[in-house]
Amino acid sequence: MSTDPTRFAPMANAIRALSMDAVQAANSGHPGMPMGMADVATVLFSKFLRFDPSRPDWADRDRFVLSAGHGSMLIYSLLYLTGYESPTIHDIRNFRQMGSVCAGHPENFLIPGVECTTGPLGQGLAMAVGMALAERHLNATFGNDLVDHKTWVIAGDGCMMEGINHEAIGLAGTLKLGRLKVLWDDNRITIDGDTALSTSEDIPARYRASGWDVFECDGHDYADIERALAEAAMSEKPSLVACRTIIGKGAPNKQGGHDVHGAPLGAEEITAARTALGWTSEPFIVPEDVLADWREAGYRGAKARQEWEARLAADPQAAEFERRMAGELAAEDDAMAAFNGWLAGDANVATRKASENALNVLVPLFPELVGGSADLTGSNNTKAKNQAPLTADDYAGRYVYYGIREFGMAAAMNGMALHGGVIPYGGTFLIFSDYCRNAIRLSALQQTRVVYVLTHDSIGLGEDGPTHQPIEQVMSMRLIPNLNVFRPADVIETAECWMLALQSSETPSVLALTRQNLPQLRHEGGMLSARGAYRLKSAKAERKVILMATGSEVQLATEVAERLESQGIGADVISAPCLELFEQQDDSYKRELLPDAAHILRVSIEAGVTWGWERYTTTDGLNIGIDRFGASAPAKDLFARFGFTADSIVPKILDKLST
Amino acid sequence: MSTDPTRFAPMANAIRALSMDAVQAANSGHPGMPMGMADVATVLFSKFLRFDPSRPDWADRDRFVLSAGHGSMLIYSLLYLTGYESPTIHDIRNFRQMGSVCAGHPENFLIPGVECTTGPLGQGLAMAVGMALAERHLNATFGNDLVDHKTWVIAGDGCMMEGINHEAIGLAGTLKLGRLKVLWDDNRITIDGDTALSTSEDIPARYRASGWDVFECDGHDYADIERALAEAAMSEKPSLVACRTIIGKGAPNKQGGHDVHGAPLGAEEITAARTALGWTSEPFIVPEDVLADWREAGYRGAKARQEWEARLAADPQAAEFERRMAGELAAEDDAMAAFNGWLAGDANVATRKASENALNVLVPLFPELVGGSADLTGSNNTKAKNQAPLTADDYAGRYVYYGIREFGMAAAMNGMALHGGVIPYGGTFLIFSDYCRNAIRLSALQQTRVVYVLTHDSIGLGEDGPTHQPIEQVMSMRLIPNLNVFRPADVIETAECWMLALQSSETPSVLALTRQNLPQLRHEGGMLSARGAYRLKSAKAERKVILMATGSEVQLATEVAERLESQGIGADVISAPCLELFEQQDDSYKRELLPDAAHILRVSIEAGVTWGWERYTTTDGLNIGIDRFGASAPAKDLFARFGFTADSIVPKILDKLST
Repeated sequence: MSTDPTRFAPMANAIRALSMDAVQAANSGHPGMPMGMADVATVLFSKFLRFDPSRPDWADRDRFVLSAGHGSMLIYSLLYLTGYESPTIHDIRNFRQMGSVCAGHPENFLIPGVECTTGPLGQGLAMAVGMALAERHLNATFGNDLVDHKTWVIAGDGCMMEGINHEAIGLAGTLKLGRLKVLWDDNRITIDGDTALSTSEDIPARYRASGWDVFECDGHDYADIERALAEAAMSEKPSLVACRTIIGKGAPNKQGGHDVHGAPLGAEEITAARTALGWTSEPFIVPEDVLADWREAGYRGAKARQEWEARLAADPQAAEFERRMAGELAAEDDAMAAFNGWLAGDANVATRKASENALNVLVPLFPELVGGSADLTGSNNTKAKNQAPLTADDYAGRYVYYGIREFGMAAAMNGMALHGGVIPYGGTFLIFSDYCRNAIRLSALQQTRVVYVLTHDSIGLGEDGPTHQPIEQVMSMRLIPNLNVFRPADVIETAECWMLALQSSETPSVLALTRQNLPQLRHEGGMLSARGAYRLKSAKAERKVILMATGSEVQLATEVAERLESQGIGADVISAPCLELFEQQDDSYKRELLPDAAHILRVSIEAGVTWGWERYTTTDGLNIGIDRFGASAPAKDLFARFGFTADSIVPKILDKLST
Repeated sequence: MSTDPTRFAPMANAIRALSMDAVQAANSGHPGMPMGMADVATVLFSKFLRFDPSRPDWADRDRFVLSAGHGSMLIYSLLYLTGYESPTIHDIRNFRQMGSVCAGHPENFLIPGVECTTGPLGQGLAMAVGMALAERHLNATFGNDLVDHKTWVIAGDGCMMEGINHEAIGLAGTLKLGRLKVLWDDNRITIDGDTALSTSEDIPARYRASGWDVFECDGHDYADIERALAEAAMSEKPSLVACRTIIGKGAPNKQGGHDVHGAPLGAEEITAARTALGWTSEPFIVPEDVLADWREAGYRGAKARQEWEARLAADPQAAEFERRMAGELAAEDDAMAAFNGWLAGDANVATRKASENALNVLVPLFPELVGGSADLTGSNNTKAKNQAPLTADDYAGRYVYYGIREFGMAAAMNGMALHGGVIPYGGTFLIFSDYCRNAIRLSALQQTRVVYVLTHDSIGLGEDGPTHQPIEQVMSMRLIPNLNVFRPADVIETAECWMLALQSSETPSVLALTRQNLPQLRHEGGMLSARGAYRLKSAKAERKVILMATGSEVQLATEVAERLESQGIGADVISAPCLELFEQQDDSYKRELLPDAAHILRVSIEAGVTWGWERYTTTDGLNIGIDRFGASAPAKDLFARFGFTADSIVPKILDKLST
């Protein structure tokens, strides 16, 4: 297919017409970007992108990420026009309405052809870095026959200006991810107006400074677009193609201005656009010849896909490749057997160290695990023995030095998980979950299996002081839907939580781990953490108190319980490594742990904010926590200062029992 | 004072000795950076920085920001050596211990000479951008006589690699903040090892691409440092000085490696360092001649400060300048009078629009207000009528186009507030509080008066879908200590919340505002929002239900109450615009609103997660909320789908009452 404008212009105009009509029908949405990038996208999908609409799950397809997710009508148009089963024209007609898969921003869980959820600016491109990284890693592992594809991105000025862009392109440049190709919609318009209002940056120079190649084209000249994309495709470096475009191109009176960015064009301007574009079809009707050209573009990849399937069938690694891409685990029993060996021990280690010990078991058993840290390897204990670095010189390695790029790391891990074939985990200090919080949220929304290893999980980190001491982070992450926040109490729970994290194929996990040592509390197996909370110790005397604690405070709860028992007050200790899993238990189990007896005092102990614990302790209970910022001092002094000692807690309980 | 090494080397070595000894005594801390940057800091504080240790609050002092806050012993040493009252040598001896102002990271609320709290990487430099912006704005307002100073920053590779660096330098470059001078500790080491492990970036090229000047020097050659700083000081552009240094310089066996970054040197290496440096004093003892040289450097600024004071005394704007720098408000009564005029109205507007209306009152009355938005001006409604843009061409303007830089904006606002003389407010979508969450936390920790205008505060934003719909954000920000999260219910509460935000001089505020219209519920004044929650409507029939709601759900609560009353069930409606302020009320007020009566059902209604509401509704209550991600559809359909209608809620209440 040549880039003959007589053929390409109607194809691009089909995108423009669908976009402006869908936004108009919804009376909401963003026509500017799809209309501006219609020409570039037409060349990309017709001549470069390797895909097969009949098999959106083809493992060796090129990945396409619409980082500027507000321009969702661009990808919906492209998927429909090239012949994907989803979305249908009915979905597009119902753009942004309840029940339509054509949501305001593209959602990976609604449409198989959407590789990732985009909308939060900058993250699409950063996820694409993870996809390109996964591709190189799997290529190094399984060879060119099975894995040999590119990752293409369309990004706008918002994606360029966000801080995460710096992290993402720095990581891609350092890892020399030459299969990553970013098409920048250089339209010089943001919501507030001309880009000059807020930026004076030379973007190509910045990309070059990070080791990228940069190409440029007129984003409305098909031959020029084809030339630039061909040059980018040939480059061995990650590449930026600056596509000079006019936002809203085709809307004669509004194009080029910021009003066309995020509002319907209006009936009058749509009429004018139809005239200007020579588009005579009714809304949502694509002329047969134009649709046929698009479908031909869509058929392009079928042959390559079939050839790939033949290669896969003949490949000795086929079964392993398919297992990994399906995300199925193969070594759970071996791992549990190894962990059961720990029950007889008496480890007194920080849970970050317990996590390292777990990784020393898991990394060899699960070749799909790819770890890393945002420059805190020795502090997060994220690197297993003999885990080779994944570098530009050795993509087969399995440990990524992400650099001081928490947000970039988290987004890259999302991209890796979405690409498939790897299970990413990565570490930083728990406090810096704040830096990557929206990527953690996107893990949850996108249902990716990403494991966040977040150490130094309370004032127990000590001297670094309040900027580094999480106070509200554990509870605040519990509020994110579809995210399991684990805070294990000892070495055994840490191993259990790691297993649960690996087994949660559609739910990301946070492991909140201590810097300080914790005694081993468990000597029995049974994967008790799977229920989220369980009775670690039953009252000996008549039960008057239930102590519910997590992580480092479980040992404190047992100490408190012993003191109470010594005074004839029976006290249960409930360890609650994952409140989200506890919430999923049936009522009878919950009532078993937390019976509805008015004479039993419920007490929570967690070295974080108390808000939220009333769910379990009731408003008549007692919540031991810290509702202010911490301080800089040795951990022991801080725990004493903030009341996390049996000496401080027992009198409070006695006082409460006596009222 | 010339840069004669025989004089400067002992001065720099005093920093080295104090730093290694303090870290050793604490058995915790970071010696590498203070030792590596000791020479550069000595030249800066002896020859360039304009300051007077006897008056850390001198308004026209240069600001110095240690962005690489882990190197806190550098600033503690400098403040002590130059003669500040705080910290004392006793504080330094107790580095990182309970009660010492020499915390692990520098804290602005502990030491007057510390301009801002640093430690979370990248934010120090980004706050410095705000300080430099405030300086130019006040210079344009009050003239060279009163405001004419620089902002100096020491930053490390971590600050360079973090995404916020991109946002910060882009903003500084666009606004041409030529008084901002960043000294980069170019030691080529990060925690994980050589910087090459994780970055291949040409940092100077990137800074140049953002409109900065770049200079370089040997960070251990005093004359070369002086030359480079002089060149940077002369430049009219924001400037980066790449100081090539050896991390831990002076520790002969450990310098230049990553082990020296964040751990004590150990007794043996300290002995070796003393020998190598020719430092014979006991720990924490600075020889008299060296201390005298340092104190001389400290006296340098006294004359300039006295001259400035004389100028201030003679300046017709002195009183206004001092009022602004003291952060005192002058127009509260006028503002309240204007807002009281609204009580008689019947506004049906979104609270984002109500906020704009409030700004139209406040911006003219409070000249210290400087607003802005992260490229969502028209959506956040943050720009008041006739509010001129603050640009490189007109620093007297009062509206900043921050660009698509939420984190950079939030950090810059912290810097502006810390600089003093301005009260910053800035807007983005509430969901993107995730992008700047740690800066919001630093507002709270640093006790800055920053107002976050966060619009589109629930599924009520409609079609943009789950990536843009806050679900957990409002509750999660309530968990941050010393942050007031306001969610006003109508135009009157919005005005009240704005006033409360302005009056909270040591507590930052979030205003969570709707996209959708809300009816005016209040026609009486009284600043009822000041108590955080209040009874908006009392039960007519016997009180059996208390409905507690915030923001857009207060109107829904009143509708539910009316339905209940029509069935003879008395229902109070409590509007709770700020739960933090409600928490601060005395028990009798709390009990008045929420009496301890077992037969009264408490119901919360908020279009966000329910977790946390048990604090008010007890575990026997009913929490109406949304504990999953949202969806893309018109707001009305979403509220219906997720049960935010009287039709859905009333039966649930009746059901609960009948059990």
